[in-house]
Amino acid sequence: MAAGYHLKARRLGIETPNEAHIFMHKDCHVCRAEGFAARTSIVVTNGQRSVVATLYPVTGGLVGHDEAGLSEWAWKELGLDEGASVSVGHTPPLESLSQIRGKVHGQKLDALSLRQIITDIAGGRYSGIHLSAFITACAARALDYEEIHGLTRAMIDVGEHISWGGRMIVDKHSVGGLPGNRTTPIVVAIAAACGLTIPKTSSRAITSPAGTADTMETMAPVELDLATMRRVVESEGGCITWGAAMGFSPTDDILIRVERVLDLDGEGQLVASILSKKLAAGATHLVLDVPVGPTAKVRSYESAQLLAQSLLDIGRSFGLQTKVVMSDGSQPVGRGIGPALEAHDVLAVLRGDTMAPADLKEHALGISAALLELSGKAEEGHGLSLAADCLSSGRAWTKFQRICDAQGGMRTPPVASHLRVIGARHSGLVERIDSRRLSRLAKLAGAPDAKAAGVELHVRLGTPVSRGQPAYTIFAESPGELDYAMSYVEANPDIVGLTLT
Amino acid sequence: MAAGYHLKARRLGIETPNEAHIFMHKDCHVCRAEGFAARTSIVVTNGQRSVVATLYPVTGGLVGHDEAGLSEWAWKELGLDEGASVSVGHTPPLESLSQIRGKVHGQKLDALSLRQIITDIAGGRYSGIHLSAFITACAARALDYEEIHGLTRAMIDVGEHISWGGRMIVDKHSVGGLPGNRTTPIVVAIAAACGLTIPKTSSRAITSPAGTADTMETMAPVELDLATMRRVVESEGGCITWGAAMGFSPTDDILIRVERVLDLDGEGQLVASILSKKLAAGATHLVLDVPVGPTAKVRSYESAQLLAQSLLDIGRSFGLQTKVVMSDGSQPVGRGIGPALEAHDVLAVLRGDTMAPADLKEHALGISAALLELSGKAEEGHGLSLAADCLSSGRAWTKFQRICDAQGGMRTPPVASHLRVIGARHSGLVERIDSRRLSRLAKLAGAPDAKAAGVELHVRLGTPVSRGQPAYTIFAESPGELDYAMSYVEANPDIVGLTLT
Repeated sequence: MAAGYHLKARRLGIETPNEAHIFMHKDCHVCRAEGFAARTSIVVTNGQRSVVATLYPVTGGLVGHDEAGLSEWAWKELGLDEGASVSVGHTPPLESLSQIRGKVHGQKLDALSLRQIITDIAGGRYSGIHLSAFITACAARALDYEEIHGLTRAMIDVGEHISWGGRMIVDKHSVGGLPGNRTTPIVVAIAAACGLTIPKTSSRAITSPAGTADTMETMAPVELDLATMRRVVESEGGCITWGAAMGFSPTDDILIRVERVLDLDGEGQLVASILSKKLAAGATHLVLDVPVGPTAKVRSYESAQLLAQSLLDIGRSFGLQTKVVMSDGSQPVGRGIGPALEAHDVLAVLRGDTMAPADLKEHALGISAALLELSGKAEEGHGLSLAADCLSSGRAWTKFQRICDAQGGMRTPPVASHLRVIGARHSGLVERIDSRRLSRLAKLAGAPDAKAAGVELHVRLGTPVSRGQPAYTIFAESPGELDYAMSYVEANPDIVGLTLT
Repeated sequence: MAAGYHLKARRLGIETPNEAHIFMHKDCHVCRAEGFAARTSIVVTNGQRSVVATLYPVTGGLVGHDEAGLSEWAWKELGLDEGASVSVGHTPPLESLSQIRGKVHGQKLDALSLRQIITDIAGGRYSGIHLSAFITACAARALDYEEIHGLTRAMIDVGEHISWGGRMIVDKHSVGGLPGNRTTPIVVAIAAACGLTIPKTSSRAITSPAGTADTMETMAPVELDLATMRRVVESEGGCITWGAAMGFSPTDDILIRVERVLDLDGEGQLVASILSKKLAAGATHLVLDVPVGPTAKVRSYESAQLLAQSLLDIGRSFGLQTKVVMSDGSQPVGRGIGPALEAHDVLAVLRGDTMAPADLKEHALGISAALLELSGKAEEGHGLSLAADCLSSGRAWTKFQRICDAQGGMRTPPVASHLRVIGARHSGLVERIDSRRLSRLAKLAGAPDAKAAGVELHVRLGTPVSRGQPAYTIFAESPGELDYAMSYVEANPDIVGLTLT
């Protein structure tokens, strides 16, 4: 389009993850000639590589009149060296935005529109404002079957794929929303120990205090490239890696960052998010764990059924065999909430500690059983005994250690240096545990960025407690975060609800 | 909540209008202790003043370990001097976001929720991502009567109000979407010359190439404070100022900036946006101009009726007498599209030039007539002759010049230095003029930021044209912008549609 202008690239060291910022002098010839103002979208090019960057004009001496200051993300995407010349120009109009406006007003998104939107997102052409409008529109105007199919297809196609040469590839996924539900490392260990191939990719936290990738990272490296992942799986039959590092469905991670800010993800986007990653990773058989409870992500069996049906239907249309396991989501699973705290629970189950949380063990065995049956490794009704035997014999624990070593070496999850025990306010029976507020509390304490931070729960529903008996403990890595969590506890004394006796 | 940390303020000169950015060293003690990462929201405090800022961590030497780099907007909001000490801390959780999530899922927003949302927006606690979700949710899940009332009330209450001591205050508003529809300066001049009090506040462009404030600014200063505006109105009976500078309904301008990025504004928000500004400015009698046409903002008389009814109902609930005038929106009004080009049309009508655009004159007289009748200055059916007499006698022109002088001095609108005439591709009758694409073209040429940029239309619907006869002219302030607009013309040869003869 318009002729490009050349400026000297200047590295400013500003971290703007997944988004490019450019800083140009307000009075430089380019801003004057092109009418560039604050937040103008600009194409920045270095040879064959280009990014769309948001402009922030600068007065004073931060950048010279012939310089373009660039944020770290832009710098790396463009593969720049200090002082290199970059060209800058107008971005073409964002045509796919009109598809989103149509959706807002009730029109359907067809496959082509979804492909244009996802391609623009993958190309870095959507700002946070645009991404937020897309996510909100798809949550407010629920996506139908064809839209979810089109979105899933577009999200797969825009990223990497892996082929396993026609082999059966099993996978599992939990719909989330339930703190501490960290079954994946246990299920992968059992499935791989039983001879299945399970190249598991996981997410970091969306709105929860820990994602499986965050928890696994406290036990082994998870940012593996495709070649390393393949090597781990060829030698051990399984892995647990961070999906985004693999390049599968790369727009999912971009959408997830905005969903996390809004604490919002619609059903259609949830289905496309799950399936696009599984299908890009080559899965042929998938078990889905859907916890249902008043404070879980899915709150009723009716909505769980709808979600399950959508996952089964869309999965089938891509040739994926899917089984949905619904489970009790009325309280957190295990004791820990937060990356390292959940890892300690996982290790206790795998090692067969007598104090290991029984609910986490049972839940992991149930999912493993479904996988063993779906894949034909066990006959219908015999999956559970096979899984339990694999765990109690220590074969799963051995397999898990081998996987961690293959991923780069096993680590010991950290322990937080600051803690506070919260006692029961009076005697009674535990009649309610608010998973949502526990999650918020764990996040205020620093999770998931502070790996050792979070909450450890000492009671279960129906437990009798005495006044002052520990109900839960808050862990933080800094005194400021602990204070901050404590002020939330003071404002919310009923996170664990007790009967009045 | 958590104890604040103190850092030395450093002015970086980065322009981030209406949004605060803070730059801290990634390894400084505050980021480490508090777990602050990219895009964390942070409260920055200087004495009694505080802002919520988005954090961008920095590596390298841009800011020291004991420094907080601040963007210009943050610097000014905090009233800082170089080297001053600021304290930084966590922001409290944004509770009003859960109301927006409820709206996304179909719940109604009650008055209290809307007040919380608008208060948080006014306090700078919403990022672009949050604002976008609010706007999109309200467009996808249309606001009902009570929600629009609550939103209007909240938007009024969060800003300044002006009282005129019980006097009758008249006002007008055009719903927009029609390029060149710049009747306001003419209507204000006529109304004030006829003895009405019309303290008109206008907006800058939302999605159009020019707002009334942008056009007026090419003829006189528009950024007046309350005291100056009152002085102008007391002496001349009318004014045309930029509403946002006045502090009326301040969140409207914040929302408008995001709506402009998305090119999206829902009906309920449109009504609240219009009425909150009028009511805060003290209006008692209001005429609304609603142009209807296939490429105007309102596309059918049915939706115009719905919008008019909503405006009348909500207006009445606040004691505002309202009259709606629907007009033909099938083509742009006047010749110019862009701030200065529209100003030239306005001046031609006021001066009574023989070449003045007749449609702009007629439209302005129609609105003036409605105002004169609604206010009782003219009896029903006699408004038009009174308005026409006021204009043809030169009284309106004299009044307009006096208003401009009172606002700080009359200016001559600029003329662009780069232009290109676009001829008809073949002979025929003009059967279609695409207002939306003309607007986009004017924006690509630089409007509204480049005041002289835009499009001048030389034909009207039904005009016979010969091959090569000028259809419209593009004006730009830079060759780059002209090139850019030309590439749009090449891709869109049918902006002016001709019959095949």
